[in-house]
Amino acid sequence: MRLAAYGLRLMFEFTLDATCGAARAGRWTLPHGEVLTPCFMPVGTQGTVRALSPRDLEAIGASIVLGNTYHLFLRPGEDVVARLGGLHRFMGWPHPILTDSGGFQVFSLESLRRVSEEGVEFRSHVDGSARFLSPERAVEVQWALGSDVAMAFDHVIPGGASREQARDALDRTLRWLERCAARFAALARGAEGRRPAAESHSDAHGARPSALGAVLSAAAPPQTLVPIVQGATFPDLRRAALEGVLGLGEWDAIAIGGLSVGEPKAATWEALEGLQPILPGGRPRYLMGVGFPEDVVAALARGVDLVDCVAPTRMGRNGTAFTDEGPVNIRNARHRGDAGPLDPTCDCETCTTFSRGYLRHLFQAEELLGLRLLSLHNVRFLIRLSARARAAVTDGTFDGWSRAWLARYRSKEQA
Amino acid sequence: MRLAAYGLRLMFEFTLDATCGAARAGRWTLPHGEVLTPCFMPVGTQGTVRALSPRDLEAIGASIVLGNTYHLFLRPGEDVVARLGGLHRFMGWPHPILTDSGGFQVFSLESLRRVSEEGVEFRSHVDGSARFLSPERAVEVQWALGSDVAMAFDHVIPGGASREQARDALDRTLRWLERCAARFAALARGAEGRRPAAESHSDAHGARPSALGAVLSAAAPPQTLVPIVQGATFPDLRRAALEGVLGLGEWDAIAIGGLSVGEPKAATWEALEGLQPILPGGRPRYLMGVGFPEDVVAALARGVDLVDCVAPTRMGRNGTAFTDEGPVNIRNARHRGDAGPLDPTCDCETCTTFSRGYLRHLFQAEELLGLRLLSLHNVRFLIRLSARARAAVTDGTFDGWSRAWLARYRSKEQA
Repeated sequence: MRLAAYGLRLMFEFTLDATCGAARAGRWTLPHGEVLTPCFMPVGTQGTVRALSPRDLEAIGASIVLGNTYHLFLRPGEDVVARLGGLHRFMGWPHPILTDSGGFQVFSLESLRRVSEEGVEFRSHVDGSARFLSPERAVEVQWALGSDVAMAFDHVIPGGASREQARDALDRTLRWLERCAARFAALARGAEGRRPAAESHSDAHGARPSALGAVLSAAAPPQTLVPIVQGATFPDLRRAALEGVLGLGEWDAIAIGGLSVGEPKAATWEALEGLQPILPGGRPRYLMGVGFPEDVVAALARGVDLVDCVAPTRMGRNGTAFTDEGPVNIRNARHRGDAGPLDPTCDCETCTTFSRGYLRHLFQAEELLGLRLLSLHNVRFLIRLSARARAAVTDGTFDGWSRAWLARYRSKEQA
Repeated sequence: MRLAAYGLRLMFEFTLDATCGAARAGRWTLPHGEVLTPCFMPVGTQGTVRALSPRDLEAIGASIVLGNTYHLFLRPGEDVVARLGGLHRFMGWPHPILTDSGGFQVFSLESLRRVSEEGVEFRSHVDGSARFLSPERAVEVQWALGSDVAMAFDHVIPGGASREQARDALDRTLRWLERCAARFAALARGAEGRRPAAESHSDAHGARPSALGAVLSAAAPPQTLVPIVQGATFPDLRRAALEGVLGLGEWDAIAIGGLSVGEPKAATWEALEGLQPILPGGRPRYLMGVGFPEDVVAALARGVDLVDCVAPTRMGRNGTAFTDEGPVNIRNARHRGDAGPLDPTCDCETCTTFSRGYLRHLFQAEELLGLRLLSLHNVRFLIRLSARARAAVTDGTFDGWSRAWLARYRSKEQA
């Protein structure tokens, strides 16, 4: 059954500006703004990118953030977010938002969940209550949150899963994708019916109307549903998953999930490389959960456009800062009297205002400002890294740039 | 012995712009900028106003912050701060800074300290090491930190102290004040000798040179030493303390310490009122440790110009927000779906960006951003309150304004 059966078509325009080898530079026009790719998406787990404000994120050039459906579903509940104006307004972020589906989180709960064909029953980590997520509910929750991009509800398996488990999970993910699409189409038709075309959300917010907009163009909020390719580290299963996904419709983007979950790095890159020949060129490719600097560069070199990860904020809160010379542990005693900046090449508030000696002091004294300043720098670092990659693609030097960058990053031992 | 014996004279100009009853509006020109009074000083205990950045503080109109000598002496050590360019540069705050002397903190250590005429031996709360602060050391540490305003090292006693204890502590505080002044004068003469007049710090930073600047005008960093009036809640001891302080010299400002330490409110205000007739009119008066909104207004009504307190940031981190209608506990369930701002009359980032429902969610979810947003609002609230008091003094309506404000603040029961 093809997506057309549900009345779904491409919604949001993606333009490929340049390629260099497998690496790409593009732009994705979403209802709340344009996203230049390659792009790192900071993760706003509970409706906030931890320790950072929306103004911080604007100041460091973030163009899209990720929200976690699982967390917002449990607390405060998507009904509360909707009542407070939707996720953009709730968190004070008027730019694009992508929400995950909750699949990754509920499958991480291990002993606290029960999986059936219908969906996943689990215990809330907040209050222990019994909760349920299914393809339909995951789509409904994201629709209520009002993100620009909603993710399909997928069956996620651990890094070391067997071929049989992987096959089973990807088949279920494909069956669930059809249910997601059916529910999404129904919600979109409902929104269309309730809202006159003249009041289109896109128009009201001055965003460029999608050239391909069709069924949903008059709906508010406009949202697209993106499928997730599973298949663990088995190249043939990955290809089968992608073919299955593509067989179901003309998706606005393709997400690659179930990588960076404990498997060897070589297997991650092999899986990506195997998908290359059959990935549609004109759609953005989102590799989920990747955000350590060297992994970002390696992924971009394999044709990925979008990545997300909690690494920059989590590492920042632990006192580790990303630099081109490798990670720096700001707690180290050698920074005690260091008047130099954390990263002399960085333009963020942290690096242009404070010394390493001061930043170390904040961590020694367990001051909240330290958590924020290192998170800010790390997110800025990945946004700058993405922008540098984009520039290298555009001027045709990506291969040399990425090889030199990786060699330098890995050669230094910092502490 | 008068201060003139040490070559100390008035350093920094204070202009009284208006009075209204006992309330005053003035401006104090310090080396790093001008402070309009009445003024609330946020407290930067460990070289940072907890959860706020220097940019936050500038955005909400803070003009001077307080640094804690005790904390910075123990960690990272005043030598480290000096090596990193002094406290202004260390914490990224190029505006005025007042440092306390450490007296209040070491006397709060109770069982961990031993007091002698020489000074106070105590155990560091950081690493348990034996440390020592004396009048001389407290002045030396503050000189190394490079604050605009240094406080004399005083003997602080608990709120319920006996008359004998209070008399003893105030006599010691006066003897220690002479030792502080002697050490301060020696440091100032040394700085003068090392630094040509043409390189005056005031000139280099474009600040208005003090009309009264004398011995220290060429010193870097220029700093003034401010005495603290003790005497617990005994009006005659308070007067004796003030007379003793004034007998020692022409101080740039007068601080009133040892209040707001557990005594009944009526006793606080009585002590202040008793000092009124003999406080010099042309010098700023700093009431230490006061920062709950109703106490600030009550203090300003009794002729106080400067106050400081951790209350706005500490209360903010606990989820309590100051408003004209009384404190609001943002954790309360009634805010769950509230789309309105925390304080509709406030212009801070928190109130102009986020809903009460979102702020409540941040506290429920234990997100760092909540601590910051409520701290930001509370400090902004006290800065606005001070500015409103100043305006009321200037247009001659302070008495009516303050009575109406206090009545409204106390009449509402929020939760």
